[in-house]
Amino acid sequence: MKDSIGIVSPESAEFRQPLKLRSGDTLNSYKLVYETYGTLNQDASNAILICHALSGNHHAAGYHLDKNGDPERKPGWWETAIGPGKPIDSDRFFIVSPNNLGGCDGSTGPATINPASGIPYGPDFPFVTVEDWVESQALLADRLGIDKWAAVVGGSLGGMQVLQWSISYPKRIQHAVIIAAAPKLTAQNIAFNEVARQAIRTDPDFHEGRYLEHTDTIPERGLRLARMLGHITYLSDEAMGAKFGRELRDGQINYGYGVEFQVESYLRYQADSFIGRFDANTYLLMTKALDYFDPALNHADNLSVALKDVKSKFCVISFTSDWRFPPQRSQEIVRSLIDCGLDVSYAEIEANHGHDAFLMPIPQYLNILQAYMDKVIDRDDFGDSNSE
Amino acid sequence: MKDSIGIVSPESAEFRQPLKLRSGDTLNSYKLVYETYGTLNQDASNAILICHALSGNHHAAGYHLDKNGDPERKPGWWETAIGPGKPIDSDRFFIVSPNNLGGCDGSTGPATINPASGIPYGPDFPFVTVEDWVESQALLADRLGIDKWAAVVGGSLGGMQVLQWSISYPKRIQHAVIIAAAPKLTAQNIAFNEVARQAIRTDPDFHEGRYLEHTDTIPERGLRLARMLGHITYLSDEAMGAKFGRELRDGQINYGYGVEFQVESYLRYQADSFIGRFDANTYLLMTKALDYFDPALNHADNLSVALKDVKSKFCVISFTSDWRFPPQRSQEIVRSLIDCGLDVSYAEIEANHGHDAFLMPIPQYLNILQAYMDKVIDRDDFGDSNSE
Repeated sequence: MKDSIGIVSPESAEFRQPLKLRSGDTLNSYKLVYETYGTLNQDASNAILICHALSGNHHAAGYHLDKNGDPERKPGWWETAIGPGKPIDSDRFFIVSPNNLGGCDGSTGPATINPASGIPYGPDFPFVTVEDWVESQALLADRLGIDKWAAVVGGSLGGMQVLQWSISYPKRIQHAVIIAAAPKLTAQNIAFNEVARQAIRTDPDFHEGRYLEHTDTIPERGLRLARMLGHITYLSDEAMGAKFGRELRDGQINYGYGVEFQVESYLRYQADSFIGRFDANTYLLMTKALDYFDPALNHADNLSVALKDVKSKFCVISFTSDWRFPPQRSQEIVRSLIDCGLDVSYAEIEANHGHDAFLMPIPQYLNILQAYMDKVIDRDDFGDSNSE
Repeated sequence: MKDSIGIVSPESAEFRQPLKLRSGDTLNSYKLVYETYGTLNQDASNAILICHALSGNHHAAGYHLDKNGDPERKPGWWETAIGPGKPIDSDRFFIVSPNNLGGCDGSTGPATINPASGIPYGPDFPFVTVEDWVESQALLADRLGIDKWAAVVGGSLGGMQVLQWSISYPKRIQHAVIIAAAPKLTAQNIAFNEVARQAIRTDPDFHEGRYLEHTDTIPERGLRLARMLGHITYLSDEAMGAKFGRELRDGQINYGYGVEFQVESYLRYQADSFIGRFDANTYLLMTKALDYFDPALNHADNLSVALKDVKSKFCVISFTSDWRFPPQRSQEIVRSLIDCGLDVSYAEIEANHGHDAFLMPIPQYLNILQAYMDKVIDRDDFGDSNSE
């Protein structure tokens, strides 16, 4: 656990004030689970918000303890970027990482018992949007005594939340770090989401979303397909080629429907590990939040108009082989930010990992992130102990 | 029906000589359904073989009659390229278009009654490979008195058959026209196929492939998902964007799982029309044939070695926005052909339609195809009636 924040455990905050959602629905009460790393300084000026992507959660860094009290084998999902001495430095920043509303890792979501009915919300859980998440994250900031984030940081769907933060609360965000994101989905992005949703929703075990009311029933087939499909879009053709090529698992063609090529084995493995940890209704909600995100929609499709009141400084990072949200999509954001006269750093990282690159320990990427985060709060502001 | 071959109807050929397949299995007898357009000349030197792609069939051009004796609304799948005065000119060529073995449109396949059991083959139908198809097409050529094809032409999986023809029967093919193809699938291509197969095979209505033994039962959910996924890979992001963008069907977000974006409507429509016409077991077989195709496999991954005995002349065509089999994949074929000192024409067509471009009426593409086919048999050989 060298260079790691070490053992961490989640905290939670209960909210009893009704939250009015974009869909028109209201959540009367809800819980947000989150982790924090580092210490909030006196004037609460060193707080960083981490926004997670589709299948992410609050466990961004460090290690949880397992049932036996031993550290789990796998750290949080962004261990490469968060921790002591890392780009998002827990020695300097107070880092807050919540699980989004509608999630399935502790925050109120479809698998939570609906207090009104005594059974899990399931399909009755309201649609949540990126705007709603920002709203709930702002209420969490209030609760933690954070008036203004030094930076809000996220990749993919997380990056969309960062962009929305800059729009919703221009005075509460000093720096926006948007990684491997897009200002809205394309028709192809929506199409992939729709196939994943159809896979889940047409699974006979989906039971119109009420599978948790049946014993040991989840729409496993659909969720597996959704995850396999997702993984194809997270990796580049090149990365898959480098990782698996056309390697045959048994060294020969078997003329059967078991695993023949290594890439098939990879997909099945990813599907297997997903179904045990992710809720199908949450998956549906997350893909819908992605589809709906479009800050320019009510501004005649002009993102620059949507961003006209934005005040924060921006760091936008994209990856050459990302075909889910390719560099051109990040550049759309950059162009609009520049249109608005905002301060933008943009980096396009040469990487063959595809969309997943934003989670990878790519030196050029982490160096750029580090350099930007060093500007968020100058290292010298932390005194000798943190300077080289 | 101007410029069309007009009304056509399929023919069929029964084969009673056992066909030994690559998998080691044998088909004792089988039927091939095919269409022909134009007239075979005296010395049988004007015959063109058309090879179809994954979901194609023998009905490549002209119109079938419906139950009322009226021409169907839709012509064959390659009406743009085949017909009088068209690039593959039925006034000059004798065009043969078979349905592949394992298909579901008349040729022997999984939905055919297995003479050994009296019930449909279903999952007992043997795996068929591109090599097996070429073998069966050669036997069909024998039956039709065609010793040598003036050209073998195909797109996508059809293009793979063309390449295999040049390898399997170097003396029986004068020109090979390979469109929007690849010398083998990438890991990503296989991954998409695997998700489609898993969708079908995990559908409870699949019944281990024996769905036809159940009343009115097909793995509709799985087949729908496979088709939707296929369609995403046939269109480019750009083409989907141009066609659908983020257009909302009802002009507003409904916060529901019905159709919201036009692209969702398109996918559902494509799925609906597919399940009525395509057999799920055939879909599985076709994707496996795609996965397995790799002529370089037994030549230390060196395609040039695999092609060393090839004699035909080649026309290779790719499309800029095809991300299923991008131009680089066609160029792999071209490089190996050049390595072998073969005569190759290569054209990369600027088109934003994605992989489906090979079916589209793109002037530059059809002009190049026409120019090449004009070289296959010189127009002047046909006398005054066909010259301008």
